[in-house]
Amino acid sequence: MNPGDRVRIERAGVTNEGVLMPSSTAEHLVVKLEGGYNVGVDREAASVDVLESDVHAVDDEPAPEAGAVSEITFDEDLPTISLISTGGTIASTVDYRTGAVTARFDAEDVLRAVPDLAGRANYRGRVVANILSENMDPAIWRDLAHAVHEEIAAGADGVVVMHGTDTMQYSAAAMAFTLETPVPIVFTGSQRSADRPSSDNVMNAVCAVEAAKADCAEVLVCMHADESDDACALHRGTRVRKNHTSRRDAFETVGAKPLGEIDYETATEAGADGAVADEAIAFRREHASRGEADLDIAPDLADGVELATFAPGMDPAAWEHLDDAAGVVVAGTGLGHVHTDLIPRIEALVDDGTPVVMTSQCLEGRVCDRVYDTGRDLLDAGIIEGGDMLPETAMVKLMWAIANTEDVADAMRTSLAGELTAESRPWR
Amino acid sequence: MNPGDRVRIERAGVTNEGVLMPSSTAEHLVVKLEGGYNVGVDREAASVDVLESDVHAVDDEPAPEAGAVSEITFDEDLPTISLISTGGTIASTVDYRTGAVTARFDAEDVLRAVPDLAGRANYRGRVVANILSENMDPAIWRDLAHAVHEEIAAGADGVVVMHGTDTMQYSAAAMAFTLETPVPIVFTGSQRSADRPSSDNVMNAVCAVEAAKADCAEVLVCMHADESDDACALHRGTRVRKNHTSRRDAFETVGAKPLGEIDYETATEAGADGAVADEAIAFRREHASRGEADLDIAPDLADGVELATFAPGMDPAAWEHLDDAAGVVVAGTGLGHVHTDLIPRIEALVDDGTPVVMTSQCLEGRVCDRVYDTGRDLLDAGIIEGGDMLPETAMVKLMWAIANTEDVADAMRTSLAGELTAESRPWR
Ligand SMILES: N[C@@H](CC(=O)O)C(=O)O
Ligand SMILES: N[C@@H](CC(=O)O)C(=O)O
Repeated sequence: MNPGDRVRIERAGVTNEGVLMPSSTAEHLVVKLEGGYNVGVDREAASVDVLESDVHAVDDEPAPEAGAVSEITFDEDLPTISLISTGGTIASTVDYRTGAVTARFDAEDVLRAVPDLAGRANYRGRVVANILSENMDPAIWRDLAHAVHEEIAAGADGVVVMHGTDTMQYSAAAMAFTLETPVPIVFTGSQRSADRPSSDNVMNAVCAVEAAKADCAEVLVCMHADESDDACALHRGTRVRKNHTSRRDAFETVGAKPLGEIDYETATEAGADGAVADEAIAFRREHASRGEADLDIAPDLADGVELATFAPGMDPAAWEHLDDAAGVVVAGTGLGHVHTDLIPRIEALVDDGTPVVMTSQCLEGRVCDRVYDTGRDLLDAGIIEGGDMLPETAMVKLMWAIANTEDVADAMRTSLAGELTAESRPWR
Repeated sequence: MNPGDRVRIERAGVTNEGVLMPSSTAEHLVVKLEGGYNVGVDREAASVDVLESDVHAVDDEPAPEAGAVSEITFDEDLPTISLISTGGTIASTVDYRTGAVTARFDAEDVLRAVPDLAGRANYRGRVVANILSENMDPAIWRDLAHAVHEEIAAGADGVVVMHGTDTMQYSAAAMAFTLETPVPIVFTGSQRSADRPSSDNVMNAVCAVEAAKADCAEVLVCMHADESDDACALHRGTRVRKNHTSRRDAFETVGAKPLGEIDYETATEAGADGAVADEAIAFRREHASRGEADLDIAPDLADGVELATFAPGMDPAAWEHLDDAAGVVVAGTGLGHVHTDLIPRIEALVDDGTPVVMTSQCLEGRVCDRVYDTGRDLLDAGIIEGGDMLPETAMVKLMWAIANTEDVADAMRTSLAGELTAESRPWR
């Protein structure tokens, strides 16, 4: 039995015919079915007959198109997880032409590349985009929101979004604001490509699928919790940040411990037969439960929202283009300040009807513009204080608030998806 | 003996006459001398005679002018520390007119406000600016560099720069690039004003003075190490960042432990009689020793250097003004990326002779543009990789490199003041 062979597989009374894929391992077989879907099966649980040798050149398949939908065979006993791919390293195969990594894959390739996913769930696979995430934009967020919504409406018990790590935090925030969800929406990615021994793609994918089966109806980011292969952290999508360029545990919940942690070994074993591996997940904080909210979507995001980072010595002309912006998030210094010379520009923007939200480049802690002269001048100019929102999250939220709410300032000051932490003291 | 009384003080054989200040405590007397200088003396070590009662209304003194120089009486047995004030909370007094904090003070007021500094050193006091540090700019950095240089040339054994916390990291980086120093240059500030019980101003000032007496010829930031009052951390000025809006331990060395730590209690006791409290300081990493380098200054900083933060969804027009920039530091995503649509603009800038340096908004870790298509395209466009430099530090360094070096790209890739960490692996 070799890759390329035509095989018949019998598992739990269901028989399928297809072509054995090269990514099959001693424990897992991956078979491409007639319809083009891939199915992963546990070697032990299946019986296999070779029908014909070497019928298929498996290496020269066309790259998937964005928008393609695929689905593997269905087992009623398993939960259904929708795998949505947007691109990035987790979705990439080595491109031998250039000697480096290039984004190209579809959800079936994930199953082919990660045989460990087999048996944990029924998978629906879907490609929304096929990009390095530095090329992510609000138009794709809208497509992604629609895709996630459709998948949940179609019965998915959880959604895993495969995404490049560069802008994952922005996209997770976009989903948190555009969707009300009764099931988990779990972003995962990979900091090291599959061709490297230290790749994190298998563990992140397995943990993400197990998290998507769990009792937590939030938008999460699931990535390595530390440099070991022991656990993945579950971060709330509106409070997470990529804080290192290359470490596998680059993602951190800012200003707090992650929402929870998922133990890899326990999750691997407990979830292998499709069971929900609740015992593998330790939640540290309150979170929405499965089914608590009804599925809903408000996918509109305003274009032209800018994130303006203040730095000393900057040319005030750098902010002239903000006149054309639909909204502005300023990443100021300290408690939320900019140079006095920039305050008239902010005032002009506000007078013009542009919402301007103040956040801090400190990243941790709350802005408070009641303490210093510059802060009070900014409040007088009409800025909206961003509380302890991350600048990146505030930018995405402002896109959403402009498109969907009457009172943008009020929306920005209200926690809609855990982006604002309750205030215990005015500021400490 | 009351504030406002004219007194004669004798200490270690030296007699002085002046007016007792209201900030005197049971342990420390603060006396304004004839020449206008303040001197703090240990109550126990001095004998005091009241010459005349209530000669001076001590509350309505004029605010000091920027550029004013003051010096207190000199004791040959003590090291000489220059206190340079630029403003900020550490230099502020409560302004009862508006009910909030406003920047107003000079170095003498520090001594008045912090009697604990008495006896540790001879102080030279100097006001370079009197601003909230959100209003800091390269022109003031040049003034500050000249002032620090003059103070060291005049014999200061160490310099303490009182500075607002908002932009302290930028100013510390500016001093690290513009000055070669044989003595410590220690920035300190305060996250809580003196009128709050949790104020950090006394401890930070005392630790900064003790650090300025120590055997470490670097530009340091000295601020609370944690939420207790046990120790201050000593951060290298080019690797430090204000990472919290309000915590007293907001400053962190990015990607590593601080250069060292100074134990408050030990420093307080061991340094009280002017001795160098070496036993109070634990250095964790290699650092320049006192006297190793000759004093030198290269204070020129190019104007028009911009820090451009990339965010998904941004209008490429936001970067049009960069055409007028002298240099650009990009804070890209992940390993150092921007949207493909922005790469032609970067290419045009480079073709025009503008140096463009890539750093990462992750803040920790090294950029590496050899892995992904977008990265290689950026390298082809001519960007200079910023290694693991903080974006803020890279911006200040680029100002300096443009003004002072022939080969800007080479300077940006070479560690000049500890801003680049040695590379052990290409990227992990
Ligand atoms: N630059 C890639 C890195 C990754 O896939 O994680 C991206 O964000 O798409
Ligand atoms: N906004 C003030 C805060 C402080 O003094 O620390 C400043 O940076 O000057």
